[in-house]
Amino acid sequence: MRDVIVAGVGMTPFAKSQSTLRALAGEAVSAALDDAQLAVDAVEAAYVGNAVAGLVTGQEMIRGQVMLRPVGIEAIPIFNVENACASAASALHLGWQAIASGLHEVVLCLGAEKLTHEDKSVGMNAIGTAIDVEMRAELAAEMERTGGVAGDGPRSFFMDLYADMARSYMRISGATAADFAAVVVKNQHNGGLNPRAQYGAELTVDDVLASREVVPPLTLLMCSPISDGAAAAILMSRVAARRVGVRGPRIRASVVVSGNRHDKDDPTAGSAARAARAAYEQAGLGPSDLDTCEVHDASAPAELIVYEQLGLAPPGGAPELIASGRTRLGGKLPVNTSGGLLSKGHPIGATGIAQICEAVWQLRGDAAARQVEGARVALTQNGGGWLEGDSAAMSVHVLTAD
Amino acid sequence: MRDVIVAGVGMTPFAKSQSTLRALAGEAVSAALDDAQLAVDAVEAAYVGNAVAGLVTGQEMIRGQVMLRPVGIEAIPIFNVENACASAASALHLGWQAIASGLHEVVLCLGAEKLTHEDKSVGMNAIGTAIDVEMRAELAAEMERTGGVAGDGPRSFFMDLYADMARSYMRISGATAADFAAVVVKNQHNGGLNPRAQYGAELTVDDVLASREVVPPLTLLMCSPISDGAAAAILMSRVAARRVGVRGPRIRASVVVSGNRHDKDDPTAGSAARAARAAYEQAGLGPSDLDTCEVHDASAPAELIVYEQLGLAPPGGAPELIASGRTRLGGKLPVNTSGGLLSKGHPIGATGIAQICEAVWQLRGDAAARQVEGARVALTQNGGGWLEGDSAAMSVHVLTAD
Repeated sequence: MRDVIVAGVGMTPFAKSQSTLRALAGEAVSAALDDAQLAVDAVEAAYVGNAVAGLVTGQEMIRGQVMLRPVGIEAIPIFNVENACASAASALHLGWQAIASGLHEVVLCLGAEKLTHEDKSVGMNAIGTAIDVEMRAELAAEMERTGGVAGDGPRSFFMDLYADMARSYMRISGATAADFAAVVVKNQHNGGLNPRAQYGAELTVDDVLASREVVPPLTLLMCSPISDGAAAAILMSRVAARRVGVRGPRIRASVVVSGNRHDKDDPTAGSAARAARAAYEQAGLGPSDLDTCEVHDASAPAELIVYEQLGLAPPGGAPELIASGRTRLGGKLPVNTSGGLLSKGHPIGATGIAQICEAVWQLRGDAAARQVEGARVALTQNGGGWLEGDSAAMSVHVLTAD
Repeated sequence: MRDVIVAGVGMTPFAKSQSTLRALAGEAVSAALDDAQLAVDAVEAAYVGNAVAGLVTGQEMIRGQVMLRPVGIEAIPIFNVENACASAASALHLGWQAIASGLHEVVLCLGAEKLTHEDKSVGMNAIGTAIDVEMRAELAAEMERTGGVAGDGPRSFFMDLYADMARSYMRISGATAADFAAVVVKNQHNGGLNPRAQYGAELTVDDVLASREVVPPLTLLMCSPISDGAAAAILMSRVAARRVGVRGPRIRASVVVSGNRHDKDDPTAGSAARAARAAYEQAGLGPSDLDTCEVHDASAPAELIVYEQLGLAPPGGAPELIASGRTRLGGKLPVNTSGGLLSKGHPIGATGIAQICEAVWQLRGDAAARQVEGARVALTQNGGGWLEGDSAAMSVHVLTAD
């Protein structure tokens, strides 16, 4: 398989936006092409991640074609890829595969999502389809038995899942709500340095704990917001890129897995841990080689759990890691320098490629006030959906500066 | 890129079914695994095409994971792929790419669709999202100007598109409604020989012309029905297949393209013609090498137009080709031996892989009463969606017996 580089990236600001889905997509694609200094007709195929446009805009089936036509992308192969909140990382993986295989030299990977709608329940109900919809009632009953507060709508339902996971993690690790709040403090600080982030603020742990309770132990600031936005990456074979003088970080590992029915008391047995192990093997690198990570902090506790799944901390060691400051900007391994999903925002089908944008900017030294000095190796982790105790889809990518 | 074989195929009967989507999917997957004589844990990745489950069953985002869990497929990478009526062929292409690239040795490609619903309008409305939904009003107005009868619902809307295409083709080629009816007569005969076909009958041209008018020149029998069903294919690298003694036809070309804004008076400029030219080049074969074809006869005129797009007949020559009998069973180049979409049925996200099932059975000599004697080369053509005068997605595959 051939070496694949990220020739260019682009993303819209993440926000509750007045723009249409196709306008957001167009903005990200144009920015990525500009960044790669490539014309639109260089693109040989496109892989488009989106999760909820069918329910939010009424457009199913040919969403990528509809999004890309206005920027002049037609005729080429276009694939519409869905994997809940991991839709964009899945699209990236398929584009990577197309270049690695030798089938194409230049491809576009796009993630785009519009969650806001004049009827607020539309986006929230749409997110609720990232579980097995036939098991919704059963799942709610189970959470009630285990001490959760079953939410009355699909959005709180997903946060119920995160709350359940958080309580279970607290029992195993001794983590406290203050540890979760420390994640928010860090990520909101980082988001404040990111002009594309939806939020960003200087907060204290007490501020986070005092925000409105969603489902115990989660407060509002521990939950990622509803966002609109798009992110794009242009991938090229290293050979073709050299020929035309295009440079960019290299994708050293691209892994997608699905969840399975593992031992739920062992956080290192889940899909993120499996995906990370496969990615480290593919890259020939390990956790100690990483300079920065973007992880799927759809809720604050998830970032801590993921620290352990990625091997950044030993089992039960994540509370110590966040407390140590090592994952802050200026620390040894800054995590979610972009602000993460909590602060940058979470337009679900765009998130996986937005993480790649941040990784690329870090590896090129383009991250301005968020720059991790001398970053050479970055990891991104993007999960999606929920099925019988694990994410339905999980992706880990590892990129190096060259 | 490596040689890829189809190690096994399976499909449900196509019908208006009482089974759930996951039951249909499970039946097709189990049949394909049995056919390949492989256990479920041999499958390394799955590519799942589905077009409308989000709107018909409420399940979006993780449809493949939900469909595959009951047959014991979990943990592996699962990709949900959407390209309207070409969803399954698109999933097949991505699976082919994964094997050809060297990333995987055994993958599952699945297309599954449940269109029937207790509220009949649900499936029909869902099909209506295979166009740019923001352009629906504009498109209807244009068809009214050009002599079409704008349908009052999305389903008739799609048949309006086909009728418009048919009228345009009649002007260019001199084709008559009787030529379209001849396609139905042939395909219903073939469907009668296929135990998995939804319909099948011995009809006359007059029978077809006398059936209820849908939109001129289309009568009911010239339109593919609403169907439920699933079809699966197990792909393997030729190298791995030889190692374990698995045999199967080889995929010599796998092409997906999107439509573009071409000259609409030139049927050879459309996406099917472009996809076919690319597939012939990839396979190193041409139209004269083909022994049998499965083509996307979502309406009867489409089969004639596609004859020309695939180079089976010269421009304007399709009426002569159908009249000659050469595309009937027993003719030189039988087309749609399965019954095609018109008679076998058209569960839209399953159709592209159902075509592959028929091609594989023909190339293995397993097609029983429908067998094309000595078939060595088969082509399948699967189109999906509609955007500014062309299919939104178009796929052509070429398979050889070995």
